[in-house]
Amino acid sequence: MSASIPDTIHLMGRQARAAAYRLAQLDSEYKNAILRAMAAALRDATPALLAANALDMAAASAKSLSAAMLDRLRLDKTRIEAMAAGIEQVATLADPVGQVIDAWQRPNGLNIEQVRVPIGTIGIIYESRPNVTADAAVLCFKTGNATILRGGSEAIHSNRAIAEVLQAGGEAAGLPEHAIQLIPFTDRESVAVLAQMDRWLDLIIPRGGKGLIETVVSLARMPVIKHYDGICHLFVDAAADPAMAIALTVDSKTQKCGVCNALETLLVHRDIAASFLPRVATALRAKGVELRGCAATRAVLTDIATATEDDWRSEYLDLILSIKVVDSLEAAVAHINEYGSHHTDCIVTADAATAGRFLREVDSACVFHNVSTRFADGGEFGFGAEIGISTDKLHARGPMGLRELTSYQYRVRGNGQTKGGGVIG
Amino acid sequence: MSASIPDTIHLMGRQARAAAYRLAQLDSEYKNAILRAMAAALRDATPALLAANALDMAAASAKSLSAAMLDRLRLDKTRIEAMAAGIEQVATLADPVGQVIDAWQRPNGLNIEQVRVPIGTIGIIYESRPNVTADAAVLCFKTGNATILRGGSEAIHSNRAIAEVLQAGGEAAGLPEHAIQLIPFTDRESVAVLAQMDRWLDLIIPRGGKGLIETVVSLARMPVIKHYDGICHLFVDAAADPAMAIALTVDSKTQKCGVCNALETLLVHRDIAASFLPRVATALRAKGVELRGCAATRAVLTDIATATEDDWRSEYLDLILSIKVVDSLEAAVAHINEYGSHHTDCIVTADAATAGRFLREVDSACVFHNVSTRFADGGEFGFGAEIGISTDKLHARGPMGLRELTSYQYRVRGNGQTKGGGVIG
Repeated sequence: MSASIPDTIHLMGRQARAAAYRLAQLDSEYKNAILRAMAAALRDATPALLAANALDMAAASAKSLSAAMLDRLRLDKTRIEAMAAGIEQVATLADPVGQVIDAWQRPNGLNIEQVRVPIGTIGIIYESRPNVTADAAVLCFKTGNATILRGGSEAIHSNRAIAEVLQAGGEAAGLPEHAIQLIPFTDRESVAVLAQMDRWLDLIIPRGGKGLIETVVSLARMPVIKHYDGICHLFVDAAADPAMAIALTVDSKTQKCGVCNALETLLVHRDIAASFLPRVATALRAKGVELRGCAATRAVLTDIATATEDDWRSEYLDLILSIKVVDSLEAAVAHINEYGSHHTDCIVTADAATAGRFLREVDSACVFHNVSTRFADGGEFGFGAEIGISTDKLHARGPMGLRELTSYQYRVRGNGQTKGGGVIG
Repeated sequence: MSASIPDTIHLMGRQARAAAYRLAQLDSEYKNAILRAMAAALRDATPALLAANALDMAAASAKSLSAAMLDRLRLDKTRIEAMAAGIEQVATLADPVGQVIDAWQRPNGLNIEQVRVPIGTIGIIYESRPNVTADAAVLCFKTGNATILRGGSEAIHSNRAIAEVLQAGGEAAGLPEHAIQLIPFTDRESVAVLAQMDRWLDLIIPRGGKGLIETVVSLARMPVIKHYDGICHLFVDAAADPAMAIALTVDSKTQKCGVCNALETLLVHRDIAASFLPRVATALRAKGVELRGCAATRAVLTDIATATEDDWRSEYLDLILSIKVVDSLEAAVAHINEYGSHHTDCIVTADAATAGRFLREVDSACVFHNVSTRFADGGEFGFGAEIGISTDKLHARGPMGLRELTSYQYRVRGNGQTKGGGVIG
């Protein structure tokens, strides 16, 4: 490639904008037929995708990447089939584009409609999993958006192959050219160029670790939707059913511990601490969970380590749980708002009034009453698909489905209304 | 003030966050009583506000600011009364906080509500008009948000006086402390510190010229809602009623020309150019409008200047209009999407199908059919109040009312649902 990185990426931006105008005009059935064609093309290309992935796997092995990294990078027939099936599933979902959000008439006769439209062009910056190439591009396409993808260097051959198959397979069914583009560079300059290109890019979504998100946030001139940590809490109120509280604690912490909606800190009301803590500790230890506690917790569970200030701010993503005894609902809410990441927090209580206060006062995307934190998920919410869980408060908060990949416009119809006076028509 | 600029602003941020948690819990009637108390306090403080403003006016005169700048800066009894009346009007508006946007039940029994909540803490950076201090703070307060205001140096005495009266007058009626804070510094460092303080600030809104917005966009780590130019178009289709097209052109251009929803470029379908252009030119010249045209326009209006590439990208904010003859609807849409600012664009036509295509294909916040562009306004849309007109596509697009100053959270109620299996309850 002889063109410079900025020239190449700016050209991709201009092409994405042109594609976006065409994508915005496609009706849902037309888009769904393209999605099914993309899925078929992925299946047909299985040998080519496996060959491309083998290049990435060989390079990764040569660099002695960890077993976990290698697993994330690996494609096989099952994973390619899962990508294809995922695309077919997206084809079955309702399309939010064109939906009339609100409509009203003004006294002067203006008819105003607020209508969902695509955002336009979306940049996705992600790390090692090649399946993100398909997942992100397909959700953006379903909602009429053009994508510019920038994946990690480890997966470059796999990502290129997947993006090419999606674009070519889609074009055979009518996909506009340049609807799905992958940046062929994997150095950091390409992230900077993309993040500064606000003329051509309407939104950027970094999918990956905190370092990646921080980099994008500090560089970006366009809106960024961030998916930061989940430091999730469960507060066991004095009026909690102990059996339910134990079941929800164990499920929230251990059903899958390496995910953003897993529990990290347990808060226990002082009035039940002496009876509840030994029971929940037994249940958690049976699942291999390491416990760390505040002084009041350690007065009951005398053999556990001390939880430090760092623990309250930690997203362990591991079988570790910090425990704090609190004096009141107010203290629980204050701890969560101070130390949490405003992702998902739960109260367990049989008292509806206490629950209502918790739900209103905790400043998090998802606030739960008597539900495992693991249900903070687009699939569990019924969205059918999820591009991520936003820890931002603007545009999209919490699980993001297709609707969150749209914007809106106001369409106003009149018969000659002028501001200066009267109707000429 | 002995504390450093960063220390002072970070403390204000922490205080704003604490205020925001309290503001989020206030019910509408309580907030409305505070608003009425703020309005009364402003009226009572008229002599003090005039005295503070006199300091700013004296400094501005000494610096030989333009007459227009001096007028923007000036407070008088009428303007203070208008601020107070504006606050009382905001008290009469419906409060979006607490509104249930959507609610549904999942097959496993989870009850999910999506509820409007305040955004939290909002920074407003603005230039010389002191009334913005009251307007912005009050709209943010009505929606349960804490504000940190950073006004221009010319209005610093007026801004401090207004902010102090609003906070003190509100506190007498129960406003939490630090709900409305004004940064006492007016140098550029304070903008940078505010824009980087994403821990304490959820949103930043720059209100002012392009230079200010660009500065904030390049510095900000939190979401920015931008109010860029309005390069608005009106397309006179071949099927337009000429009398309506002339009336809408004249109104859009001249009813008030220094505003973002005023017309800047007129597009005329080739089929009617020869008959329409002389008529519209006569009507526009009668209002003192200078015309600049493309070659085809100048073939009809032989005495006007040539419109250059720069003209198509200009927001004149003045009695100047560029005119281009286009071959088709497609050409009109392509010109608007390429040269416009995606703010407000109108088609004049008697053909509903053509209008429908225009509304769908033009990528602007407001797309109008047979309506003056001057109606792109929160007041005209019936929002009751307007914090600005967003040229962004995320979170808020077009006129922003109270609803656009809110976020949402998901409140989920269950009876012991665990992801690992079944209900314990």
